[in-house]
Amino acid sequence: MTNPKLDAHLTEHFIRREERLSGSYLHVVRDTVTLPDSSTATREFIVHPGAVAVIPLMDDGRVVMVRQYRHPVGQVLLELPAGKRDPNEPVLACAMRELQEETGYTAGQWARLGGFHNAAAYSTETMEIWVARELRAGPSRLDEGEFVEVAEVPLEALLEQLQQGQMPDMKTALALLWLARWRASAWPLDWQTITPLD
Amino acid sequence: MTNPKLDAHLTEHFIRREERLSGSYLHVVRDTVTLPDSSTATREFIVHPGAVAVIPLMDDGRVVMVRQYRHPVGQVLLELPAGKRDPNEPVLACAMRELQEETGYTAGQWARLGGFHNAAAYSTETMEIWVARELRAGPSRLDEGEFVEVAEVPLEALLEQLQQGQMPDMKTALALLWLARWRASAWPLDWQTITPLD
Repeated sequence: MTNPKLDAHLTEHFIRREERLSGSYLHVVRDTVTLPDSSTATREFIVHPGAVAVIPLMDDGRVVMVRQYRHPVGQVLLELPAGKRDPNEPVLACAMRELQEETGYTAGQWARLGGFHNAAAYSTETMEIWVARELRAGPSRLDEGEFVEVAEVPLEALLEQLQQGQMPDMKTALALLWLARWRASAWPLDWQTITPLD
Repeated sequence: MTNPKLDAHLTEHFIRREERLSGSYLHVVRDTVTLPDSSTATREFIVHPGAVAVIPLMDDGRVVMVRQYRHPVGQVLLELPAGKRDPNEPVLACAMRELQEETGYTAGQWARLGGFHNAAAYSTETMEIWVARELRAGPSRLDEGEFVEVAEVPLEALLEQLQQGQMPDMKTALALLWLARWRASAWPLDWQTITPLD
């Protein structure tokens, strides 16, 4: 998106980095940058490995969702299966792993929907969103201390919940609206055939 | 979304909070919680005041966008005007303030699209999304050290960029897809008439 010449009047330049927090989950740094007017400023943000969310689409049009308690927002959210990437883990491998761990499903076909920054002001995170179909059920493999409930829900019911304000997870809301455009034959997807993991 | 009785098998319960980082921009805490199986775990996350994004819709169908450099992701993003809420600031007041500060526009009508959690795993943030119309141009009031370029872009061009992977800001992607459904008369909005700030 950035054109180095055309965007010189907007672009900041890195000077130095200071470690702020190396936590049990979050890594926070504070960078000093040069602003376009040559003054300096600091930018404090999370260094994040990136994440993947999956829209698991059943043959009958239902979507495999997960319900889980999210302590920072104090409620159970209905979300797409998703998770952080392991170090150096390829995006599709992460998508396949998270789908199987959280729901038990494996998928024969995959298509990439896009990559999105969910908190560009304070996190390096990119959330990749993929669609999976030709699903095959199997046992889930939740980590210890992970409590997730699987629910297969028709897309129309999910969209109705979204419209009514009952689908507050942002990646899920975005992904469902995009899927609806694909289903309306407006936006094509580029499917890859994958041999499911055993 | 949470039903205390039905969701007992998913819900975590707060035990204590530890301050982890009181930074120049980020406030990080680590809570200890009880899991549904009565074991304990820690949850490290950002305490965030919430934010508002605005879809400023011109009479001719263009959307008022901002281009700004986002250091954490290292690029200029095309985004909706948005910003953090000041302490105790009502949501609509924040929406009106951010629209005017970043773009100079004031609006005669406002409709709430919804509230979304953009990082429920590691932030308390709720991003409210509002639509503004009956726009009136005026001078922007950028903070010192804030470099933002305003661009009025037709919705169809924005949707094309989104489909082509050139609209990676998640709140903007979600908001544009929702707006497209409203424009297709699929999802109504509930407009409020507001006297613009001077």
